[in-house]
Order: sequence, then C-alpha cells, then structure tokens
Amino acid sequence: MSREPRTPEARASGLGLVIPEAAAPLANYLPTVRTGNLLFVSGQLPLRDGVLMARGKLGEAVDLASGQAAAAQCFLNVLGQVRAALGSLADVRRVVRLGGFIAAVPSFTDLALVMNGASDLAAAIFGDAGRHARSTVGVPVLPADAPVEVEALFEIGAD
Amino acid sequence: MSREPRTPEARASGLGLVIPEAAAPLANYLPTVRTGNLLFVSGQLPLRDGVLMARGKLGEAVDLASGQAAAAQCFLNVLGQVRAALGSLADVRRVVRLGGFIAAVPSFTDLALVMNGASDLAAAIFGDAGRHARSTVGVPVLPADAPVEVEALFEIGAD
Amino acid sequence: MSREPRTPEARASGLGLVIPEAAAPLANYLPTVRTGNLLFVSGQLPLRDGVLMARGKLGEAVDLASGQAAAAQCFLNVLGQVRAALGSLADVRRVVRLGGFIAAVPSFTDLALVMNGASDLAAAIFGDAGRHARSTVGVPVLPADAPVEVEALFEIGAD
Repeated sequence: MSREPRTPEARASGLGLVIPEAAAPLANYLPTVRTGNLLFVSGQLPLRDGVLMARGKLGEAVDLASGQAAAAQCFLNVLGQVRAALGSLADVRRVVRLGGFIAAVPSFTDLALVMNGASDLAAAIFGDAGRHARSTVGVPVLPADAPVEVEALFEIGAD
Repeated sequence: MSREPRTPEARASGLGLVIPEAAAPLANYLPTVRTGNLLFVSGQLPLRDGVLMARGKLGEAVDLASGQAAAAQCFLNVLGQVRAALGSLADVRRVVRLGGFIAAVPSFTDLALVMNGASDLAAAIFGDAGRHARSTVGVPVLPADAPVEVEALFEIGAD
Repeated sequence: MSREPRTPEARASGLGLVIPEAAAPLANYLPTVRTGNLLFVSGQLPLRDGVLMARGKLGEAVDLASGQAAAAQCFLNVLGQVRAALGSLADVRRVVRLGGFIAAVPSFTDLALVMNGASDLAAAIFGDAGRHARSTVGVPVLPADAPVEVEALFEIGAD
C-alpha cells in the first residue's frame, strides 16, 4: 500500500495547495492551445482569486520570498489552465518546459531563486514527470505590474 | 452563398491590409524553420517597406496607439514569412502561439493592450484558427530600437 | 576525398573549439527535455570551466566583442547539454530555434550583432542543419549577472 498520493491533484492537496479555477485571458487570446501531444500554456500571472498577490519588481517593492510565492502561484494558475483544457491533470505525461519572466531592477541577479518557486512545485506535484527544461530572465515590467510571469509547455497523452 | 472571404489573404485584403514581401533576416539565421507540422517564425520587427514604423519605448517615445500599430505590423511580417515559406497561407491550420516583446520603460504596464494589435489581427485574418496561446513581456530594448517584436509558432498541414 | 570534417564535433575541433562537459543546472530543473523528435535545451549562460566569462550588461561593463564571445560560449554549452543527453551530436537533424536574451542598457541596440556569436557558430558547426529560427531581445538582468543567455530547440533523429 503506497502512501504516495497517486494523482497530481492529490499531491497538490497534500501540500495544502488548491489548483484554482482557470482565469480568463487578459485579452484576445487563448489560455492553452494543443497541437499534437504538446499543450502550450499562455503566460500566467500570480493572480489569486482574481487579484495579483504582489505588484512591482524584485529588488524594489517585491522581496525574494514574495517573488518565490508569486512564481509558485503562477504555476498553480498554469495547472488551472491545463485542468480546464483537459478536464483533469491525469493526461499530463510531463512538464516539458517552463519560461520564467521576472520583473526586476537591473541589479537583482537572484532570478533563478525566484523561479524555483515554480520549478520546485512542478517537481512536488508531478514527481519526475515534473522536471522540466527552463529559461529564466529578468524583464523591466510585466502586464499589470506583476512581478512574475510563467509560461509552460506540457506533453500530454495521445488522442 | 457566403459573404465571408474564404482565404486568410482575402480576409487581410478585406481589412485593407497587405501581407508584405518577406524581409531578410538581420543576421545569420532563417526567418522560418519547419519541423514536423510546426513552423517556427523568427521574431519580426515592425518594418514597413524596409523601415521601422516607430523607434523607441512604450511610455517614452512611443504611445499606445503607435505600439498597437507596430504589433499589428509585426504580425503582418510574420505572415509574410509564412507565405514565403509555404507559398500561401492556405496550409496554415492554426496559430499556436505568439510571443510578444514590448520595449517599455519600467512604469509602462499596458503591455497586453499593445500586444492586442497582433492578437486581434490574428483572429481577424484566421478566425478561430487564429486564436492562440500568448506570452507578453516588457523588455528594455529590442534590435534596431524597435518598440515591438513578435515571434510565432504555427501548425501547418501535413506533408 | 572530402576535406570537410564530417561530424559536428570534428567541425568544432577544426575551429579550435571544445564542446564542454555539461554544466549542472543552477536549480531544480533539467538541462534538456525530449518530447518526440524535439529536444528543448534550458537557457545556458556563458560559463567556462564553471566561471562566467563576463558579468554585467552590454552598453555598460560588457563590450560588443565580449558579448559575442559570451553568446558563442552559451551555444557551446548548449551543445555540451545536447551531447550529454544524446551521447553525441550525431543524432542532431537540425537546430530549429535559438532564443537569445542579451542583458543590456536601454540605449544598446546592437543586440542582433551580439547574438550572431551564437548563430554564426551554429552554422559553422552544423552547416545548413545549423541554420535556425531566432528571437533576440534585450533584458535588464540575467541570472548571476550574466551578459547573455541562449536557449535552444533541436530536431533529433527518431527513436
């Protein structure tokens, strides 16, 4: 009898996390598009119940811990979009790639630590299937003055 | 008898838009690469007849309307590259993803509105097949001091 | 009898270049992920023997030639990751896409010239198979204050 929760949803729940309802896009685009076995997820902001968890830039109004929490929330919102697209997370074969955009002042170089908020959560929820390729970069500003934006690419089960 | 123009080219023409001749890359790379049913399009700048429509940053030298027009022109240039690669736009199955890079000062947060210039045009030209995943971020500077750069991924008909 | 070296490794060697051992990721993610015939490579920094070749921004502490050398080193590190994933570079069918992130002050617009350090090397090592789609953008800051980060997508031989 395994004590390891079997589904990604159960693992998230075991961490005390709630995968949110999918937020509507801010503009004229789709939250996800599937092509073949790939599911592209639009850049997600750290919205919680429709409100940004933090605003501003790392190295200025937003500290490291808040940035990491924002990155984790972005990834939860990614999962909300995946669940809305597929009905559940059961068909996720793996997280292929995350792109992390961190709003930061030019002197803030701990960008990788911020993005770990998303990457660590991916591994916690999906196990080995959650380990992904990643690019993390600083940006001067994000939509709505969000501190973090995370885009994602998933491999999903065949039709 | 449908009054809806049937081809993307006809829809663009009906909007008074011209899909331009493909511009040569600024350096040692290709404007498009196909792998399987995916066509990757290199980041396009808002060139029109070989000249940038605007230079500088949103929130500084470039206002919102000019930024939106620049984003639309970037998408037209994307289509010019797709047409050059495929011979026409008839084999486009859908726009999968757009990446929007907006040169902006750190206080300019209306990045999504700028990128809508590209996204709205994609929907107008391709209908439902034009609705795409998208990531939009601010950047401090783009090649040649362009205000907007748009990269794209298309799903195209099988060989 | 051809005088053209046949393998990418031999071409690199002919250029006096060494494809390095793969560096460990800076955090909780993987250097590469394969899905189907696509190999996604995480953003690579210009590390050489574990040390950044340069730190800081183009237009400030880093000049054009140093930026180009850094971009070339990023691409060599990309190849180190590909070789570690596949055992050799023999199964590379082509370089599909490079993403270039250049840490730059807002007045530095020669971003494409910097990224050519990576693109020119791809063509030199892989020939026509090295010509790729590309997006190049400026960013205010990169992890560890690196001046350049290059991510990559390869098409590889079937299983």
